[in-house]
Amino acid sequence: MTKAARPRTDPDEVREKILEVAEGQFRRIGYQKTTVADIADELGMSAANVYRFFQSKSAINQCICARLLDGAIELAWRHVRAEGDPAERLEALLVAMHRHNRETLIQERRMHDMVAAAVSEHWENVKTYKERLNTIIEGLIREGVDAGVFAADDARIAADCVLGCFGMLLHPVMIEQCIDDDLDTKARHMARFVVRALKA
Amino acid sequence: MTKAARPRTDPDEVREKILEVAEGQFRRIGYQKTTVADIADELGMSAANVYRFFQSKSAINQCICARLLDGAIELAWRHVRAEGDPAERLEALLVAMHRHNRETLIQERRMHDMVAAAVSEHWENVKTYKERLNTIIEGLIREGVDAGVFAADDARIAADCVLGCFGMLLHPVMIEQCIDDDLDTKARHMARFVVRALKA
Repeated sequence: MTKAARPRTDPDEVREKILEVAEGQFRRIGYQKTTVADIADELGMSAANVYRFFQSKSAINQCICARLLDGAIELAWRHVRAEGDPAERLEALLVAMHRHNRETLIQERRMHDMVAAAVSEHWENVKTYKERLNTIIEGLIREGVDAGVFAADDARIAADCVLGCFGMLLHPVMIEQCIDDDLDTKARHMARFVVRALKA
Repeated sequence: MTKAARPRTDPDEVREKILEVAEGQFRRIGYQKTTVADIADELGMSAANVYRFFQSKSAINQCICARLLDGAIELAWRHVRAEGDPAERLEALLVAMHRHNRETLIQERRMHDMVAAAVSEHWENVKTYKERLNTIIEGLIREGVDAGVFAADDARIAADCVLGCFGMLLHPVMIEQCIDDDLDTKARHMARFVVRALKA
């Protein structure tokens, strides 16, 4: 009798599957209430096996949140790389970033403790994300300056100001505090206002 | 023997004294750790007597925070009523409001739970404060439009945008999260940037 070849599992695929199941549980049950054992259970594996891939629940959350932030960065790039007037693209980018954060991070109430935990446990990730976003916007401002649409003595400081102005509309905790307001209208007004500050 | 005239105490003075002692304790010991009995003790009166003036510790805190907010509104009025270019006054007003909030609400670490409790227990106060500040800034924008310095289709929406842009630099929780950054430089850059969005 020949030994049946045991299907090889790709470690990357296992990691991916763990993240997917964990994200589902964090969203449904909440980050604080989910345990690594719960995640392992749904995957039909042992908790010890999950720990071979991730040191802790916090490490799993870090990866999930990093992917959410990567999604936001991708969105920003799409607007930067599009055709057309840099002013219009910056305005659209800001509104889209607000909507992305409002919908991904806040819409589902249970997400809140996951995001809050990620912000407090992995502040470095958030800082890196802000740096990247800042640099992407700086690039778009430079493009606008070259095209004669924008005027800015220092594109880096200008990008800082743009993001600073949109802080309340991008920060999950602040979005949640104002979730009953008409944030979409506010975001559109604010984006137009902020872009006006850059106009040549 | 004539009965010694008992000094009459003015209820307003007692209220004032209670608020003063309570604010001192909230700042030194923290809001959560201070009890009405502690406040009464320092005043040499019974807790029951304190309760004749304020229904609860939360009611005391509401009055203290309302006074802090009134102080901020006074500061805003001073800039609005000053002489000179409306653009320069708006810029100075924004930087001054940031400094006021940073110094009054945040500098003393123990203040934080007092402010956080006030924000969550008395959200209506904060909303009223924002409304007043918004209207004061709207007035300054209208003045700038009349003077030909500012251009704004709708001064109310413009004031909303100005305050929205400065939200991160005015909100105590957000200031605290970034307290290690060079917030003063940031506030100056942001104020100049925001005023630029209004320029005619």
